[in-house]
Amino acid sequence: MANKAQVLYDFTAEPGNNELTVKEGETITITNQHIGGGWIEAQNSRGEVGLVPEDYIELSKAFPSFSGPGTTTAAPSVGNAAPPDLSFFDAFAPTSAPPQNQASNGNDPWSVWNTDATGGSSNNWASKPEGTQTGKSAAADPWSSAAQGHPQAYQGPGAEDDEWDDEWDDVKSSGGYAESESGESGAMQRGGAHGSSMKISLNKFPGFSKSGPELYLLCKQLVKGKDKLPIYMGEVGPVWSYPETQLDCVVADPKKGSKMYGLKSYIEYQITPSTTNRPVNHRYKHFDWLYERLLDKFGSAIPIPSLPDKQVTGRFEEEFIKMRMERLQGWMTRMCRHPVVSNSDVFQLFLTYKDEKDWKTGKRKAEKDETVGVMIFSTIEPEAPDLDPIEVEQKCEQFSRFTRAMDDGVKEILTVGQEHWKRCTGPLPKEYQRIGKAFQNLSSVFNSSGYQGESTLTDAMTAAGKTYEEIAQMVAEQPKKDLHFLMETNNEYKGLLGCFPDTIGVHKAAIEKVKEGDKLVATSKISPQEKVTMAKRVSIMSYALQAEMNHFHSNRIYDYNRVMQLYLEEQVKFYETIAAKLRQAHSQFTTM
Amino acid sequence: MANKAQVLYDFTAEPGNNELTVKEGETITITNQHIGGGWIEAQNSRGEVGLVPEDYIELSKAFPSFSGPGTTTAAPSVGNAAPPDLSFFDAFAPTSAPPQNQASNGNDPWSVWNTDATGGSSNNWASKPEGTQTGKSAAADPWSSAAQGHPQAYQGPGAEDDEWDDEWDDVKSSGGYAESESGESGAMQRGGAHGSSMKISLNKFPGFSKSGPELYLLCKQLVKGKDKLPIYMGEVGPVWSYPETQLDCVVADPKKGSKMYGLKSYIEYQITPSTTNRPVNHRYKHFDWLYERLLDKFGSAIPIPSLPDKQVTGRFEEEFIKMRMERLQGWMTRMCRHPVVSNSDVFQLFLTYKDEKDWKTGKRKAEKDETVGVMIFSTIEPEAPDLDPIEVEQKCEQFSRFTRAMDDGVKEILTVGQEHWKRCTGPLPKEYQRIGKAFQNLSSVFNSSGYQGESTLTDAMTAAGKTYEEIAQMVAEQPKKDLHFLMETNNEYKGLLGCFPDTIGVHKAAIEKVKEGDKLVATSKISPQEKVTMAKRVSIMSYALQAEMNHFHSNRIYDYNRVMQLYLEEQVKFYETIAAKLRQAHSQFTTM
Repeated sequence: MANKAQVLYDFTAEPGNNELTVKEGETITITNQHIGGGWIEAQNSRGEVGLVPEDYIELSKAFPSFSGPGTTTAAPSVGNAAPPDLSFFDAFAPTSAPPQNQASNGNDPWSVWNTDATGGSSNNWASKPEGTQTGKSAAADPWSSAAQGHPQAYQGPGAEDDEWDDEWDDVKSSGGYAESESGESGAMQRGGAHGSSMKISLNKFPGFSKSGPELYLLCKQLVKGKDKLPIYMGEVGPVWSYPETQLDCVVADPKKGSKMYGLKSYIEYQITPSTTNRPVNHRYKHFDWLYERLLDKFGSAIPIPSLPDKQVTGRFEEEFIKMRMERLQGWMTRMCRHPVVSNSDVFQLFLTYKDEKDWKTGKRKAEKDETVGVMIFSTIEPEAPDLDPIEVEQKCEQFSRFTRAMDDGVKEILTVGQEHWKRCTGPLPKEYQRIGKAFQNLSSVFNSSGYQGESTLTDAMTAAGKTYEEIAQMVAEQPKKDLHFLMETNNEYKGLLGCFPDTIGVHKAAIEKVKEGDKLVATSKISPQEKVTMAKRVSIMSYALQAEMNHFHSNRIYDYNRVMQLYLEEQVKFYETIAAKLRQAHSQFTTM
Repeated sequence: MANKAQVLYDFTAEPGNNELTVKEGETITITNQHIGGGWIEAQNSRGEVGLVPEDYIELSKAFPSFSGPGTTTAAPSVGNAAPPDLSFFDAFAPTSAPPQNQASNGNDPWSVWNTDATGGSSNNWASKPEGTQTGKSAAADPWSSAAQGHPQAYQGPGAEDDEWDDEWDDVKSSGGYAESESGESGAMQRGGAHGSSMKISLNKFPGFSKSGPELYLLCKQLVKGKDKLPIYMGEVGPVWSYPETQLDCVVADPKKGSKMYGLKSYIEYQITPSTTNRPVNHRYKHFDWLYERLLDKFGSAIPIPSLPDKQVTGRFEEEFIKMRMERLQGWMTRMCRHPVVSNSDVFQLFLTYKDEKDWKTGKRKAEKDETVGVMIFSTIEPEAPDLDPIEVEQKCEQFSRFTRAMDDGVKEILTVGQEHWKRCTGPLPKEYQRIGKAFQNLSSVFNSSGYQGESTLTDAMTAAGKTYEEIAQMVAEQPKKDLHFLMETNNEYKGLLGCFPDTIGVHKAAIEKVKEGDKLVATSKISPQEKVTMAKRVSIMSYALQAEMNHFHSNRIYDYNRVMQLYLEEQVKFYETIAAKLRQAHSQFTTM
């Protein structure tokens, strides 16, 4: 007899991964509970069979005791109890979980996404009262409780092992921009079962711990030697030390691998750095490991944008892989362009490891790195006089204002762009198609007139009608050629800007600490010498922030110049092609 | 004490005519009941004063007895009874008239128009079961009872006099295509108080009387001499006799006149025919008189399109006058182009009368013309052998099918065009404007960065943003430059095609009569000689129909060639201008 189970949380299958999409409240039949790795095989009521994370289901019992969403109990073992009558089951449901088939706002990612997508007001700037901690920023925010308290299919001691489970690899959301833009927040609401957000908030980012920036402001020992990060005074102010040749890399050639006797599959990408020109292979989880290391090490000083995960779109596997690769390329390019990040041991390891052993040794070393969190500032050496704390504060405020304003501006473009995308792929081409059909229909009526000398007109009208049908198709396909890149760039910047509140927060906390200096000395919490050290060190932090902002600005100017040029170039081509097509159609009508 | 009155039917004021818009159920105060000409002066609750047709109101009484919509009682005289309490009044309302402020479908022109406009299935082809008798066709259909049974502000013995009242002149509907397209049917539903439709169905078109085409088929005396209308065999088949030079005229220079001591005003147009190049003046009512004469005389053989009346759009007087003039020009051009119509005495009188006396004499003569209705066929002389009745029937069926199919095709273009018009003037420019604003907003954020070398990018982004705002405006204004003419032409053809069912109906009735020939001879209803005559005459009718169809086809080919050329030419310009503007915007970004 088959075992029934109740689905506790929505789970969306990865295409091509033999998974099964299930909905909260759904009853499924366990077909194989010995898959291992946290998965069971199940069949839904439509007869579809696939893998489901075992934490997502609860075996049906005669007297079921639900663990509602929000508890972190271990997954119940899948037993053999007889499935209870569903109506009996339902009677229990409302007390502990949302009733079957009823999408509560809290669990429905769409309702959250829509709010975020259309309103554009949801953001992670603490000073904005309407802002909720969503998306990537929430992921990087250690105070975010939303990231905790939900069971995950795979998490635990195995996380640093190569045997990480694959749902970390191939997570995706489906659909166009309307969803993907705000998919990050949806993921949190969905239970945060997927994505890197969880692991960070639970385990990482010690720099943002409750001890705050004092760890650095008051530490005795500073880093010496080769790990130093110099800051020079450039034309635009403090700047990082830039290499002579900018590192670059190509992410390409995604290949499917499988494990667990073919039941689970994953994608491996080939990454070729411009320095060695020798390709290395990495799975998504390796990118994710790199992201964590970078966030851990540099996050207090340098915004490390999240990896593309929930954002990735595409209903079909091929499209999904292509899109993820495109975004991994974007992420890698941005990291390569950063002089501090690209020059770091861990980043170099990722790009140039020689073999499995080399990789594993490097990994272990990177994970043991103690110069992480706020301690990164201990490696920074500005070649400039100390700044006055008031000036430090002014700079910090200015950057805060700017990044916040830019965040609004970027989100406005994303909102408008989403709407434009929808119109260009929806009603607009339909309308051009109808115009085209109407011309062609009238033409074929004219053809039936039986009147002589009709054909020049009817041929021309048919051609005009077909031209409008072609225009319909052009309109529908155009966003992929231009708006796509404008959206991608702004989406990337949205992610990057989402990191600034945390980075700036570290600085603000340090400034506050320095302001308390006199009081701390008076109450003998610190010595007068320590007060002087704090002021000096907050100045170093400020130089780091300024260097980073200047890096950000120069990249921003480059990126927006590039994307606007591309956008307008493609728009010009688009309108010129339409004009040419219409001119051709026009020429077929005779002047009488 | 002021006299109160209750408004019985909606009345929309003509702009510039000192009229007052009132709604059914509204209570107004009579300020002058001695205006004369069927008008009273009244004030509404907002203090606005203007003229209202006295038939449209009922003086409030202590115990009001409503005459509901559908009665044709004479207008009650405006008395002095005290106005009743409104709540008391309302208690009576639902039993005899729709309650105040509640738009019933029957009285709400919008609900009817919308159905017609969006569904596009409402038509006047008897063979289509879903068709309802609406609009122009209903107007020309003597069997249409919808045209009767509603009080009209001005109608009766004065109608052939110069003292016709002016609401016949300046009727309009407001709004864009969505309304105007289907306004005709709305007018009927509204009560048919305005427009020429009424007069025709009540008084005119004897050719469509119950006696039918027999009047001609069996008449003894045929017309002789100069009034003959020859039909030649041309390359395309039977054709009318075309003049060497085509008549043309220019309708221009609308001037406002007034009467009734300035209380009522009207517009006079200057019409200059190409033959004499001497302008004559006519008011709308003269056009209407001409239309009736032409319909009366030629309607059985030649589709005479209705004058523009309800169709005219424009919320402001100037716009309204311009639009009406444009459409009167279109109507006159079409009449001038018709060899039979343009050569007729009555049309020549209209274009070339020398003075008031000449005009009045000509009018009287035209009104006494007895060669009207089906008798027009008695003037037709084809120079070709008689047609077999079977061939006559086939031709007739063919024309019926064609005009019906074209009617569908034209309505499809109008429906699609309306939607396109709405999109181009509504959501689409708004979206381009928002894109433009988003670019400009981001540009001004960038400007606040404090980073050096920002201005090239921000200037370029501002320019790009402004370009999209310009595009927004171009998009919104484009329909007036191209779609307008496409719509006008199709609208004209819709009107013209709406006349065919009646014209073709006369032919079908004649064919049926001829088919009955043997039976009629057998029952001694007609003599064998009369049967032969009938067959000969139905052949003459067929030549007339063929000549007319050939005229229609040649005009149609000319008109559609011309309008499609114009449309595509303007579309090419539009897209080329956008491309050029974007190219200019593109050039401002620097290649890094």
